[in-house]
Amino acid sequence: MTQNVDRETVVSRLLAADDILILCHKNPDGDTIGSGTALCLALQQLGKNAAVLCSDPIPAMYDYMPITVFDGSFRPAFVVAVDVAGIQLFGERNNIQEYAEHVNLCIDHHGSNSGYAYETLVDAGAAASAELLTTLIPEMGAKITPEIASCLYTGVATDTGCFRFSNTTAETHKAAAALIEAGADVERLNERLFESRSHARVIAERMALESLEFYYDDRCALICLTWDQIQAAGVAGAELEDLTSLPRSIEGVEVGLTLRQQKDGSFKISVRTGHDTNACNIARRLGGGGHPRAAGCEISGNPDNAKHAILEEVKKELDRADAEKAQ
Amino acid sequence: MTQNVDRETVVSRLLAADDILILCHKNPDGDTIGSGTALCLALQQLGKNAAVLCSDPIPAMYDYMPITVFDGSFRPAFVVAVDVAGIQLFGERNNIQEYAEHVNLCIDHHGSNSGYAYETLVDAGAAASAELLTTLIPEMGAKITPEIASCLYTGVATDTGCFRFSNTTAETHKAAAALIEAGADVERLNERLFESRSHARVIAERMALESLEFYYDDRCALICLTWDQIQAAGVAGAELEDLTSLPRSIEGVEVGLTLRQQKDGSFKISVRTGHDTNACNIARRLGGGGHPRAAGCEISGNPDNAKHAILEEVKKELDRADAEKAQ
Repeated sequence: MTQNVDRETVVSRLLAADDILILCHKNPDGDTIGSGTALCLALQQLGKNAAVLCSDPIPAMYDYMPITVFDGSFRPAFVVAVDVAGIQLFGERNNIQEYAEHVNLCIDHHGSNSGYAYETLVDAGAAASAELLTTLIPEMGAKITPEIASCLYTGVATDTGCFRFSNTTAETHKAAAALIEAGADVERLNERLFESRSHARVIAERMALESLEFYYDDRCALICLTWDQIQAAGVAGAELEDLTSLPRSIEGVEVGLTLRQQKDGSFKISVRTGHDTNACNIARRLGGGGHPRAAGCEISGNPDNAKHAILEEVKKELDRADAEKAQ
Repeated sequence: MTQNVDRETVVSRLLAADDILILCHKNPDGDTIGSGTALCLALQQLGKNAAVLCSDPIPAMYDYMPITVFDGSFRPAFVVAVDVAGIQLFGERNNIQEYAEHVNLCIDHHGSNSGYAYETLVDAGAAASAELLTTLIPEMGAKITPEIASCLYTGVATDTGCFRFSNTTAETHKAAAALIEAGADVERLNERLFESRSHARVIAERMALESLEFYYDDRCALICLTWDQIQAAGVAGAELEDLTSLPRSIEGVEVGLTLRQQKDGSFKISVRTGHDTNACNIARRLGGGGHPRAAGCEISGNPDNAKHAILEEVKKELDRADAEKAQ
């Protein structure tokens, strides 16, 4: 069982510590890397020895962060995890497990934090761990330098989709304002973080748009990718996953469907709906499930059969929603 | 010649006025409509008669704004223009010219404002007119209601591409924070303003991605649209214009080219470059011109000839940049 601690305690623990190892989560994103690097820079500014450890390589897009990677040159006396909600999220590489089981302090913004650390500070209202650190670092008596500001801005901006996602609050914007005033290179960062699409992403989008079809007066949009198409395009994982939001993002589309054929020939179907219809109603009738606005199911058969089966359920749900509205 | 006035003067003019007509610019965007509606609501809150006039219809995407459209039911005694940088931007319809030539007060954030009004307040540092009004409306003694906050948030968010463009400052984020605290329905607004792509935009992107080609180790990306393709897709104007940023937005692409065939068969070529190469160098050698990062030219001939001609110039510029780097 962890001890939930307040900000003052966190500050006093950090000020009392030295030889500090900061752990990030695996598959690192802008928030865990930005927050970890910012905290490391702040501790170094206070004259402490500190370094950052992550199971996976830091993505090249974050190479502007002056990160001190832990190289084993000191024996960590205090271990801090940043933005890591559960012990399974530390990953396996770089001997990180050796430290992950003895985390002195966890600083996080995930309400789901499992409490694996001896002491934990979770601010579930913060849009990013970096938002929390934007006020915590000055409370430690460290200055938010332009370098620290750029790291924290990265965390805040990436975790909110550049202030677009529903986790964005007034406090998030206040943090952004403070970081820009402290010298975050916001113009260059936004260009790098949000103006650029990966090659794989573009290829995946091309494939998806080529297969795009509309049904029911354009209230339903569908993309259907066969196993052969997916193999030929050479896209996988995140790029394919991202496509599931595409059909519903088209103006006027209430139900967005993404059908991806698996190696065994069956179709994995993602259902995304607007406010009027229920995705789970649609998926459930085909043996699937999920949430009101995002659900999924699997169907075997050829592409035409799979489309036909799911489109029938979409029709029923659209009719139900229309009948409800008419009442 | 206009008189440039300070905020206090603007407040006193507005408080002294009644039967106020608020003018927006033609092809209305989120800022002119959001600012105009917010100012109208604030004036009405102070017990004044006020209405909004625009040359063009209000786009359906802004139909959540409780806009009082001027219907001729009162005789305007005071005319205010919001977010209108020049008299030619008022448009021609709805008899707007009748009022555009006698604008008592202009409130704007465009440094290029031509000074057509009797009195003008321009804050060129503000990312949006709505950012300026976020502080001006309380100075008038009006309360930022949730409705006003949603209108102003629309202006701030749309003019900054949701806090992504380089006009975004610390003050912009402070305005957003204040508007969210005042009750702006930020989650629903972001979804409506930024999660949605028009049908025409999707069709245009599909056409563009289908034609996408890479050259020179993927440092150059090119889309080429023939007149027949453009006609068949039924896209025009803004959607086609937006595509010119697509090739350069792909990770690792230094030079992005968009070739669009005109009705007469010739190709209009848009050149967009990164920090290493000069778009104008490329376009100029083919008789065009522009800016260091965005330029254009026209070439006649069939698609293959046009591609060949522009790609040769791209090669020269990439070679020049490489040579410069090697020095």
